Amino acid sequence: MEKRVGYSISTYDLLLKALQERHDFFHEMGGRISDHGHGNYFFENTSIDEVSQLFLRLKNKEVLTQTEIDKYKTYTFLEVAKMNHQKGWTQQFHVGAIRNNNSKMHQLLGSDNGFDSVGSPNKAEKMALLLDNLNTTNQLAKTIVYNLNSNESEMVAAMVANFNEGPVAGKMQYGAAWWFLDQKNGIENQLEVLSNFGLLSCFVGMVTDSRSFMSFSRHDYFRRILCNIIGNEIENGLLPNNLELVGTMVKNICYTNATNYLKV
Amino acid sequence: MEKRVGYSISTYDLLLKALQERHDFFHEMGGRISDHGHGNYFFENTSIDEVSQLFLRLKNKEVLTQTEIDKYKTYTFLEVAKMNHQKGWTQQFHVGAIRNNNSKMHQLLGSDNGFDSVGSPNKAEKMALLLDNLNTTNQLAKTIVYNLNSNESEMVAAMVANFNEGPVAGKMQYGAAWWFLDQKNGIENQLEVLSNFGLLSCFVGMVTDSRSFMSFSRHDYFRRILCNIIGNEIENGLLPNNLELVGTMVKNICYTNATNYLKV
Amino acid sequence: MEKRVGYSISTYDLLLKALQERHDFFHEMGGRISDHGHGNYFFENTSIDEVSQLFLRLKNKEVLTQTEIDKYKTYTFLEVAKMNHQKGWTQQFHVGAIRNNNSKMHQLLGSDNGFDSVGSPNKAEKMALLLDNLNTTNQLAKTIVYNLNSNESEMVAAMVANFNEGPVAGKMQYGAAWWFLDQKNGIENQLEVLSNFGLLSCFVGMVTDSRSFMSFSRHDYFRRILCNIIGNEIENGLLPNNLELVGTMVKNICYTNATNYLKV
Repeated sequence: MEKRVGYSISTYDLLLKALQERHDFFHEMGGRISDHGHGNYFFENTSIDEVSQLFLRLKNKEVLTQTEIDKYKTYTFLEVAKMNHQKGWTQQFHVGAIRNNNSKMHQLLGSDNGFDSVGSPNKAEKMALLLDNLNTTNQLAKTIVYNLNSNESEMVAAMVANFNEGPVAGKMQYGAAWWFLDQKNGIENQLEVLSNFGLLSCFVGMVTDSRSFMSFSRHDYFRRILCNIIGNEIENGLLPNNLELVGTMVKNICYTNATNYLKV
Repeated sequence: MEKRVGYSISTYDLLLKALQERHDFFHEMGGRISDHGHGNYFFENTSIDEVSQLFLRLKNKEVLTQTEIDKYKTYTFLEVAKMNHQKGWTQQFHVGAIRNNNSKMHQLLGSDNGFDSVGSPNKAEKMALLLDNLNTTNQLAKTIVYNLNSNESEMVAAMVANFNEGPVAGKMQYGAAWWFLDQKNGIENQLEVLSNFGLLSCFVGMVTDSRSFMSFSRHDYFRRILCNIIGNEIENGLLPNNLELVGTMVKNICYTNATNYLKV
Repeated sequence: MEKRVGYSISTYDLLLKALQERHDFFHEMGGRISDHGHGNYFFENTSIDEVSQLFLRLKNKEVLTQTEIDKYKTYTFLEVAKMNHQKGWTQQFHVGAIRNNNSKMHQLLGSDNGFDSVGSPNKAEKMALLLDNLNTTNQLAKTIVYNLNSNESEMVAAMVANFNEGPVAGKMQYGAAWWFLDQKNGIENQLEVLSNFGLLSCFVGMVTDSRSFMSFSRHDYFRRILCNIIGNEIENGLLPNNLELVGTMVKNICYTNATNYLKV
């Protein structure tokens, strides 16, 4: 990042300055949505003074304790989350992977070459504190949370709903099935949990985090599974047989909701 | 409580005395079932001397460590659980909520106004120690355990079965789907887990923790889902097509079991 | 074990020597598969010197800390796992039970008389470190992992796949539904998770850990559930209606895969 901003990032203040400049740059380029990957949720109370010291110790290649790491991550993440809010962006959290489990293959091939897994369940308390901190100062951006451990689906869907607030419909979203869960059963489960714990009709639907042309079929697969569930429920008398009503909801989930949601 | 009992509760002994008096009062008034809400399970070995000291420190508004808090809760909860047993009451545990996650709305509206969530999974070991402590001295009352995190359904159903003991059929019960789980999928899951890990035929069925007339439809919904599952299993050849046998079980779950179970 | 090996096991070195001798003996007798039961996963870095000291302290009936216990278990388990690999054995892990929860009945009847439960979810990180340690030195034997807590099914299936490596097809296996999960829903879930996170076609299928004649029906039950799932998916157009293709896979899962897999 030092090369991009054109100065040496020797203090934590300069790190925040550089992050702000890059955030501004992406906004100018048309960016309206960010993506944050966490192994797990973290939240530790701290201050800019304490984190500034941690930054210098990191520069000195000192080893921090887990609590210190979490303090550093908390403060820094909250700063970026506030930038997301300030610009009206949507922020996405992808939480729960445990990566590079196979050291031998990691050494051979490097990162992001597979050999990842679903991690252990995360702490609901930490997730609550993180969202609550931003919400308390009215700096919680529109947020979509994707979980990798299916044990957390109900917790995540219930938790984000605690911070829903107008005027954007479905401001806090429990996101579409992700990675290992992006298969027929996983997609069905996400839709069921969302229906039971949230509001399916506000769902912004499937996303594509890749740039490959295969993503077309991924969206198509999602739409077929969505329609299959809804069609079955109509046949079983669990939803009204009203194509106007239900069809509009499907169209909204597949297109209109996202369009409205992502508008600044 | 000081106003009710008519004396100042200045020591832990007096707190236990006051709790006993209130418990006696509710029994006189016809109370036969108690309800205990825990965020999570706790169990720490302690003594009345240690807890008496913790009580005085709490009166002095000192901050206790988590272990000290758990010691205090363990001792006090076990005392009340023994009162429940001594009078032949049924005790209910509702476990796993994380409450008041949205500070802004909590400040605005106060407690019990929504903004709650499913919490993280609880510790099976703590649950085992709590029940085992009471069971070892033959002071474990009839107990119904309701879980909010569906990840614990199988653990809870397996755990309570470890402490089943005559003469009351189904003394230890895995309770009906609760709160966030009190919907079609949640009710179905509770019945499936109970069937797989316990004995559906001993189930005391749906409960109503509200006083509203809407509870009638809640019981009706439960009965329809129960009958739907059983009807489907008969059609699929998984249960015998014997209305006398299966119909009696349904009646027992919906009425007779609870009547027999709650009798002192 | 001292009686079997014919000498006093007074040091940790002698313990490893004795374990090796017993392992050799079982191999001579035709043993080709081992079984390791863990309450949960553990991994702590340690050395033979440290563990040798812990061994002497255990002989002195000293109480170890949880970290010390985990160090001892890690080192000792890895040594045995390396013996399994060295001889081309298959190793099985059965993970997640919490046993003897009812002290009263444990005192009355002893161990292994019921009164056990599904435990809390295990740490994915520890499981990764354990497998990675063996894999890094190319000493990871063919491994089948059985979980008791169904919340871990997806994590386990994803994790073992991180260490798959030729030439044995499906070297790392997510094992068949076990104990509390060995019922219709549990068997179906194991097959679904394996299909979604791994490769059903490489599955070595049902096992029998008992010597009772009732195990015949257990295998039969598994085969019927497997065929039922696959038949339904063919009827629903989710699998090709090709008996040659699908029938061969079923035969492989029920017989051929295990034969090939267990060959040394």
